[in-house]
Amino acid sequence: MAYSELVVPKHSIMTPGPVEADPRVLQAMANPIIGQFDPALLHMMDETKELLKYVFKTNNKEAFPVSGTARSGAEAVLNSIIEPGDKVLVPSFGRFGYLLAEMVERSGADMKLLEQEWGKIYDPEELIKEIKEFGPKVVAIVHGESSTGALQPLEEVGKFCRENDILFVVDCVPTLGGVEFKTDEWNIDAAISGTQKCLAVPTGYSPLTYNDRVGKILEERKKIEMGLDLKSENPRRIQSNYLDLSQIQEYWGPSRLNHHTEPTTLLYGLREGLRLIQEEGIDNRIKRHTIHGEALVKGLQASGVKIFNDLDTKMPVVTLVETPEGVDEAKIRATMVNDFGIEIAGGFGPLAGKTFRIGNMGYGCRKDNILGCLAALEATLVYHGAKGINVGDGVQAAMEFYKNLGDDQPAV
Amino acid sequence: MAYSELVVPKHSIMTPGPVEADPRVLQAMANPIIGQFDPALLHMMDETKELLKYVFKTNNKEAFPVSGTARSGAEAVLNSIIEPGDKVLVPSFGRFGYLLAEMVERSGADMKLLEQEWGKIYDPEELIKEIKEFGPKVVAIVHGESSTGALQPLEEVGKFCRENDILFVVDCVPTLGGVEFKTDEWNIDAAISGTQKCLAVPTGYSPLTYNDRVGKILEERKKIEMGLDLKSENPRRIQSNYLDLSQIQEYWGPSRLNHHTEPTTLLYGLREGLRLIQEEGIDNRIKRHTIHGEALVKGLQASGVKIFNDLDTKMPVVTLVETPEGVDEAKIRATMVNDFGIEIAGGFGPLAGKTFRIGNMGYGCRKDNILGCLAALEATLVYHGAKGINVGDGVQAAMEFYKNLGDDQPAV
Repeated sequence: MAYSELVVPKHSIMTPGPVEADPRVLQAMANPIIGQFDPALLHMMDETKELLKYVFKTNNKEAFPVSGTARSGAEAVLNSIIEPGDKVLVPSFGRFGYLLAEMVERSGADMKLLEQEWGKIYDPEELIKEIKEFGPKVVAIVHGESSTGALQPLEEVGKFCRENDILFVVDCVPTLGGVEFKTDEWNIDAAISGTQKCLAVPTGYSPLTYNDRVGKILEERKKIEMGLDLKSENPRRIQSNYLDLSQIQEYWGPSRLNHHTEPTTLLYGLREGLRLIQEEGIDNRIKRHTIHGEALVKGLQASGVKIFNDLDTKMPVVTLVETPEGVDEAKIRATMVNDFGIEIAGGFGPLAGKTFRIGNMGYGCRKDNILGCLAALEATLVYHGAKGINVGDGVQAAMEFYKNLGDDQPAV
Repeated sequence: MAYSELVVPKHSIMTPGPVEADPRVLQAMANPIIGQFDPALLHMMDETKELLKYVFKTNNKEAFPVSGTARSGAEAVLNSIIEPGDKVLVPSFGRFGYLLAEMVERSGADMKLLEQEWGKIYDPEELIKEIKEFGPKVVAIVHGESSTGALQPLEEVGKFCRENDILFVVDCVPTLGGVEFKTDEWNIDAAISGTQKCLAVPTGYSPLTYNDRVGKILEERKKIEMGLDLKSENPRRIQSNYLDLSQIQEYWGPSRLNHHTEPTTLLYGLREGLRLIQEEGIDNRIKRHTIHGEALVKGLQASGVKIFNDLDTKMPVVTLVETPEGVDEAKIRATMVNDFGIEIAGGFGPLAGKTFRIGNMGYGCRKDNILGCLAALEATLVYHGAKGINVGDGVQAAMEFYKNLGDDQPAV
């Protein structure tokens, strides 16, 4: 069977990821390959570290990507700090909280899982009560839950954990680079993200950062692989070799201890994507995401659809819309992509079929995408027989919202 | 601190990887991102599966990449089939054999490690004797050892393993797509590779294939993650979530069970790289690698340097040259890259400093690169004071070799 050259349709990606990469990132990624110990590549690794610290708002010594998708970074952190029997509290409030729990359980921890109704978050005071009661070594939680659009405040819990010498591990996959996230100020010991959401870089890397409290555990558990040091032994060694943070850290550090081969083009892409964030300014970028998220909500409200989220705990970059009565949710998504070239996402778990998800992340978080999505969605819903849609009102409301910002317009 | 746009030097990569990606692969990778459930992306995943089967020479149902570098695929296979206490034999003959041993040991296996002098391989009869004696569930071995350039024959051992119901797992990272490799004919149960060597695709993916014997174990150990199925339980579950082949297989299969987010641009690149292999023809491609490997050896011999490898067990795509007496090996590599723009690689382990490694892989395996490398190397060695270099003879010998091929010239 013969295959043609690659043909990729051009879509506007209004999902909670993977989202459109900045064209300048894709251009950077088309650069030729250089060797893994080429001084130019090592310099790029060092720059990427510094740029990541800027985006994570941290002074940590360590900040680098794990060579895998977002969950590889989460597993690397959790498996590197958790030893069998360690007490770990996982307050879940959606699919990705359960993912953390899954990893914690597989690591052999004594895990306590808290469960929350999908769409809700935890009251920090209650969470602190649970932590006091269980007395864990580690608390692992999601910041923004892209399955529900809910955003968990972290500051109080982080402060309590630090004061009580508990490690606070946070998944900021959908929020980093688009929603306020302060690693140091919020006393987060390890933060894990992905590239394919607000960083607007293709999938394949999991940028993370951690402080010396985590670093100390890594130092204690370090074992160099046999191919480099036959004598290295450690009874407390980390279970995985591929996701062994103590070794990956050395590869990203001055010793350049060879672990995997760094994915060259992904590194080009991440470094360029981070540089563009620095150029825009991280706070300007967060503001841009907030504004477009508000425009989307205003538009949806005026359209007459029902927003699933509690607006006061909603993540600014993910919005869940309830499927109008009598309409097949899958058909809404199909029309959006097939007829308008706009991708939106379905719901997960208990929300599947009942809601669909709209993302406004990274390069795709632009006025033209927000307005285009609202216009297409109104038409799509009417086409599929939804009742009570105020045709045209959603787009106008968003346009009014932008106009009323006056001089405070986002750049795109 | 402000950062400039990405600047990447253009080098000829004559290392054993990562090597130059075909420019058409890089172009394919510059395509815009589409969603992970976009029908176009799912179709691309299916095509990639079929193209991988062609390159692996297999009729296996399963062939897909793990989203990580080559070692992620090896760990995924080993950890998914090995359960604590399982007997596993690892005959190592260099750094990457030790890497397999490292992973096997971390998986909790009852491992027997065989060690071999670096540069040598195993006599298949002796290997079979060792297998008989130890009686393992799994034998895990490297096909081509890129740290030494040695190539292990696999056919007899594979036949014995199949006849005795032993799982035969092979790392073909540097050989797949450049050196003869027959998954089915050699009775290999699972084969693991990387993209950044003879496939000429950027690093970041680990393509692998396995048969129903492995599939049966995955089926027995399958546990769906909590975020998708809260009731799924399995006491024999695989330890890792990220590298859980039983779940990754489902993501690549018709159920499309969501696991990670597939790295979109890497998928574009792999699919295009495999398509180019099909266009060239896998056997033509292997022949091209063999011819250029021979030209390099002929040239090096005429240059007066000493080749480290036994020529009758050398991998056609990696050649180790002994560092001439009185010359600093690191300086040779520095001059090659800084003055000639040609990257060659240093030695690992006991061969560090004593040898350097030249690769002829993938897109970089071209006549112009072979001749340029020989010319630059002669000049570099003379410049650094090596004795006995027959200046000019190496390049002429390689040119003569190509001329004598007559009509049998490689395409590039």
